[in-house]
Amino acid sequence: MRLTARPVAVREAVKLLRYAIAGFGNVGSALARHVHDRADRIARSYGLDVRLIGVCDRSGVLIDPSGLDGSEIARWRESGRPIGDHPGGPSSCEPEEFFAAGIDVLVVSLPTDRHTGMPGLKLARAAIGAGAHVVLADKGPALLALPELEREAATRGLTIGASATVGSSLPTLSFARRELAGAEIVEIAAVLNGTSNVILTGMRAEGKSFREALAEAQRAGIAEPDPSYDVEGWDTAVKLTILTRALMDERCRLDGVNPVGIDGLDPEIVERARVTKGRVRLVGRSIREDDGVRMTVAPEVVGAEDAFYLVEGPRKAVRFRTDDLGDLVVSGGASGRRDVAAALLRDMLASVACSSPSNAATGDRRRDR
Amino acid sequence: MRLTARPVAVREAVKLLRYAIAGFGNVGSALARHVHDRADRIARSYGLDVRLIGVCDRSGVLIDPSGLDGSEIARWRESGRPIGDHPGGPSSCEPEEFFAAGIDVLVVSLPTDRHTGMPGLKLARAAIGAGAHVVLADKGPALLALPELEREAATRGLTIGASATVGSSLPTLSFARRELAGAEIVEIAAVLNGTSNVILTGMRAEGKSFREALAEAQRAGIAEPDPSYDVEGWDTAVKLTILTRALMDERCRLDGVNPVGIDGLDPEIVERARVTKGRVRLVGRSIREDDGVRMTVAPEVVGAEDAFYLVEGPRKAVRFRTDDLGDLVVSGGASGRRDVAAALLRDMLASVACSSPSNAATGDRRRDR
Repeated sequence: MRLTARPVAVREAVKLLRYAIAGFGNVGSALARHVHDRADRIARSYGLDVRLIGVCDRSGVLIDPSGLDGSEIARWRESGRPIGDHPGGPSSCEPEEFFAAGIDVLVVSLPTDRHTGMPGLKLARAAIGAGAHVVLADKGPALLALPELEREAATRGLTIGASATVGSSLPTLSFARRELAGAEIVEIAAVLNGTSNVILTGMRAEGKSFREALAEAQRAGIAEPDPSYDVEGWDTAVKLTILTRALMDERCRLDGVNPVGIDGLDPEIVERARVTKGRVRLVGRSIREDDGVRMTVAPEVVGAEDAFYLVEGPRKAVRFRTDDLGDLVVSGGASGRRDVAAALLRDMLASVACSSPSNAATGDRRRDR
Repeated sequence: MRLTARPVAVREAVKLLRYAIAGFGNVGSALARHVHDRADRIARSYGLDVRLIGVCDRSGVLIDPSGLDGSEIARWRESGRPIGDHPGGPSSCEPEEFFAAGIDVLVVSLPTDRHTGMPGLKLARAAIGAGAHVVLADKGPALLALPELEREAATRGLTIGASATVGSSLPTLSFARRELAGAEIVEIAAVLNGTSNVILTGMRAEGKSFREALAEAQRAGIAEPDPSYDVEGWDTAVKLTILTRALMDERCRLDGVNPVGIDGLDPEIVERARVTKGRVRLVGRSIREDDGVRMTVAPEVVGAEDAFYLVEGPRKAVRFRTDDLGDLVVSGGASGRRDVAAALLRDMLASVACSSPSNAATGDRRRDR
């Protein structure tokens, strides 16, 4: 029981936060490991004992209401073995069993059909019905139904975390909800695809062609073997659609975007960047117009006085233009496996903070150190 | 009753949010006017009927449990007349009467002694005791007691908003709480004083001396007649101390900072900026070290690849360096009177969002438009 070893007294009784991960791939195992590694800090700073109650993949469901060892389960997964072969289980093949065991948060990271959102969407709905907060790690349910899920959750005092479906460690959705409250968003502009930005940075900084820069990003494990989803702008379009539907207009749909990617980059753009000493960025942009919101994804040349100029390599950024709070830019957010895990943990902590007074307890999180 | 005229159906019953403003100066009257102007939007987007129940200044307290007209009261104040002369009141001289009338949020914008935090601190404590959220518009109580107030509030399920004491429309405190949850802040660096930055921008862009740029900022109404609090770095030091105590180490105190301002700017710095094509910024910085957190305020030369390079004129920025979520930079945040009002409204909405499910209702705020 590691909590007895924590170095400082927690002011209030430690509260249990029981969570489960549906879909145990790279992201799921990184989260289980990260939460395990940060257990002492979470107990000290938030008064929470975050306990992994269950995991599942296609091969089976593993549940232990007293808590699984996140580090051990992550190693099991990373050695390539399915959950169904784990000696502790599986108890069944139905992730709905998580709810019977009693969980506070369900992390949904099932590979999902982007046209139907299934099976993640069904499971997210079931979680809300069972009284659990939902943290989405997969884009499908967020793309199709985030506003709807948020309404369903709100009626039960629950929250939906979706950081990992948009900017990972770059704050976007929850930032806008909290920090732009009361203002109207007139425009969202964002650099959201790390792979494209790494390639564009390589093309400019090292004078490479698109093919050469892509090949290097693939060798470095940054670009996928089939990079089309990223370099054709679809990843940016999906993330922009999630943001736009949640923050500007729910009627917007992915098929309203005709993304222009960075493959086959117009030589005129490259030349203009060279002449003006600008830099090329793949920008997703949603602008409020009289008859709705117009979404575009396309490469743009940005000058040295534009915040996106400094967004190099795998970094990301988002700029919200508002009426009452001016322009606000957030930048940062690398998207390695641990960054995603940290973003998911952040959403888990926020869900509890917003349904209990414990968020303010972080006020003196370092005091006892 | 303007709510009957709102253009769209609100899904759930409109909920009352009753607030009062203690200390009715420029900021208070700007808030009353802004909330009045945004009433339809707040009803439509948040399902809230935000009603001003009371205001007070040194001359008296004006209370109407059925709601004051924020626009009318703001005009009264702006015409230079004290609240005590208002025909609707005053009912007494004790702002504690707000609590008897029943309020959900108290906005504290009393001119406060920075050594004792009084009288704002006493009133903030009384508000918490009476079950009201607190939004601080004055730095005194935040500087001395924000973590303590947050703990007191948390035990009662209440929140303390403090945007306006640090960056106004630039998100800082609540951003860190929500978006850095689970990570450790290793360093905070920030450009927080608009006046100094306007002067520095004028010195560089127009080749002015400090005296000339200051005089111009004074003519433009940006710098105070006595600019020492801003240009000697104290404003930055106060804001940095509020941030650092809340987010890094509650033991930090303002007297642990020895600010170096931009008055008497070292000519060597100006020359280095010129030669390197850098820009001078007044940077507040808190760094975690083995034996605590070290806070400094001093002018720095930043290069073209630094996020602070683009923070020109009255803009502000903050960079959080963390272990698990990398570096995150937020920039923006002009600090005119309406920007401060919008930041206060944001804190008011957040306090309610976090104590009810209504935050998620903003998910489709534009849907009905």
